[in-house]
Amino acid sequence: MLVLLDQTRLPAEEVELVCTDAPALVQAIRTLAVRGAPLLGIAGAYGVALAAVRGFDVEEAADALASARPTAVNLAYGVGRAHSAYQAVLAGGGSPEEAAAAALAAARALHKDDAEASARMARQGLALLDELLPGGNHRILTHCNTGALVSGGEGTAFAVALAAHRVGRLRRLWVDETRPLLQGARLTAYEAARSGMPYTLLTDNAAGSLFAAGEVDAVLIGADRIAADGSVANKVGSYPLAVLARYHHVPFIVVAPVTTVDLDTPDGASIEVEQRAGHEVTEIMAPQAPMAGAEAGGGIAVAPLGTQAYNPAFDVTPPGLVTAIVTEQGAVSPVTAEGLADLCARSRQVTIS
Amino acid sequence: MLVLLDQTRLPAEEVELVCTDAPALVQAIRTLAVRGAPLLGIAGAYGVALAAVRGFDVEEAADALASARPTAVNLAYGVGRAHSAYQAVLAGGGSPEEAAAAALAAARALHKDDAEASARMARQGLALLDELLPGGNHRILTHCNTGALVSGGEGTAFAVALAAHRVGRLRRLWVDETRPLLQGARLTAYEAARSGMPYTLLTDNAAGSLFAAGEVDAVLIGADRIAADGSVANKVGSYPLAVLARYHHVPFIVVAPVTTVDLDTPDGASIEVEQRAGHEVTEIMAPQAPMAGAEAGGGIAVAPLGTQAYNPAFDVTPPGLVTAIVTEQGAVSPVTAEGLADLCARSRQVTIS
Repeated sequence: MLVLLDQTRLPAEEVELVCTDAPALVQAIRTLAVRGAPLLGIAGAYGVALAAVRGFDVEEAADALASARPTAVNLAYGVGRAHSAYQAVLAGGGSPEEAAAAALAAARALHKDDAEASARMARQGLALLDELLPGGNHRILTHCNTGALVSGGEGTAFAVALAAHRVGRLRRLWVDETRPLLQGARLTAYEAARSGMPYTLLTDNAAGSLFAAGEVDAVLIGADRIAADGSVANKVGSYPLAVLARYHHVPFIVVAPVTTVDLDTPDGASIEVEQRAGHEVTEIMAPQAPMAGAEAGGGIAVAPLGTQAYNPAFDVTPPGLVTAIVTEQGAVSPVTAEGLADLCARSRQVTIS
Repeated sequence: MLVLLDQTRLPAEEVELVCTDAPALVQAIRTLAVRGAPLLGIAGAYGVALAAVRGFDVEEAADALASARPTAVNLAYGVGRAHSAYQAVLAGGGSPEEAAAAALAAARALHKDDAEASARMARQGLALLDELLPGGNHRILTHCNTGALVSGGEGTAFAVALAAHRVGRLRRLWVDETRPLLQGARLTAYEAARSGMPYTLLTDNAAGSLFAAGEVDAVLIGADRIAADGSVANKVGSYPLAVLARYHHVPFIVVAPVTTVDLDTPDGASIEVEQRAGHEVTEIMAPQAPMAGAEAGGGIAVAPLGTQAYNPAFDVTPPGLVTAIVTEQGAVSPVTAEGLADLCARSRQVTIS
């Protein structure tokens, strides 16, 4: 079985969610009990291993897990890594038990890799911040949640802010609440508070005033998929921040593991953006109660009955608005197709060696 | 006594709020039970009349009402109009009863003027839309609530969209939910639904995707104060929309009565922006229950205990980002100090004549 922290209950309660098969994990992924690009990859890999160890149909589990959410490429990557390990053993004449053990080992390796990647991203990101903003004393704006909750380590963008905090160079972390599901208010504020970071929460609407007042030195966000041309799909609301950052000449930095780069997706227009249920907008979900998920409402209505909502989970920021993409293998700046291709080639060499 | 519709209870319930003195009205204004720039002016004027009719201290009531919220200049204008009428009668040797009757007449005149101004703004705004977007079939994005709930008539920006709808030229009204207090979701969606308009609700975060997809033909918003240089203070989140509109070459149109222009405020930096309590961000207020107001929480916590929030009620859009300011006396485009001064001068002539 797979034991997850149910992120929909944070910060009110720390509740464990137990998944004994892949369908339960698919449901946990769809309802965002488990979420965040790197963690989705790890969860997907463990999900395949779970199906294999328990003797369920591994192909079916892998297909269902890989397609549980369409935008985050890490999910498909994690599923694929465990699935490939499983298939390789079978193809080599190994028993199902040996194949299951290989899938589990692959999931554990991914989990460990992710923790290491997180530490390296933090170092790379901090070095970039110091280069772009030599004065230190950074005021960083972030969106959604990209910390330890989404990672085998300390996360992506959040890990950079945390690294800056640890060396005394974080003046303030501005935390966008991140509607509709309030991952900033519920999760990033929770992680910032636990880490003793100086942070202030704001509605997504209030970021504009901060930029106008010169209170933002850099924007740090994660990514769910980066296309070959450097277009970045991330939590809805990232693109408006990129436009604001450009308008105010503030660096807009994307922090993500190399596995987030999908060279098979040529550009931003090719990224499938998940459209989620309207009730996430027309109703407010209280974190005290379990979320009802995508299939039903159950929150507190804030709009008239019958109101239709437009609810994309992500938006796409074109490469021209991104100052740098920071990965565990180094940063790409300016963001170009060539730079990303080189980075991915280097990354594959590292993996092979 | 003054009977108001308690806007904090919408759309769940239509509840009347009865104010028998000015302090009760001040409280209703502070907790946003009554809100919206034009309506604040009307309510302020009636508040002075209420104090005068009931024999309370009119000076004290006028001071308290005028300063109940600092940003919307209409509030001070409405209070001043009733107060001046009251004082003029006393100065001319009239009795307190006659002065009170004059204050009430001034409030009623303002109420009526506002309804007429609303109808004229709708006509002017529709004419401008047709000029800027000759094809008709407009897809209009709006923010916060600017309809009949805030006006003696049909409102400001919303009235323009409604006029477009009535002549069959509104393809879609995109309604920003408008965090933190969700006036878009609760009030604009309610008014759009009642008027049979084609509307779709979205989180404020999702507006960027709509612009990027070319789904927004114009942005229409109201204003709480317009400085002499044309800087526009409006609900927080307006400025990011102005930046997005500029980036995407979409007209950004401000609709407000001439009384919103404050020639005594020279520029955007001189506009006092109201900072509201953090619990509006750290807690979600359900419209079913009465709002606890600025002094206390009482909502559903969505952030960890002790989280500080940055919660400006308004932001300021510089004139260079505003395509046009539409008033009942005509539109100013491009937005310049000279154009606004001329408009105000014309408006005063109309009032005097």
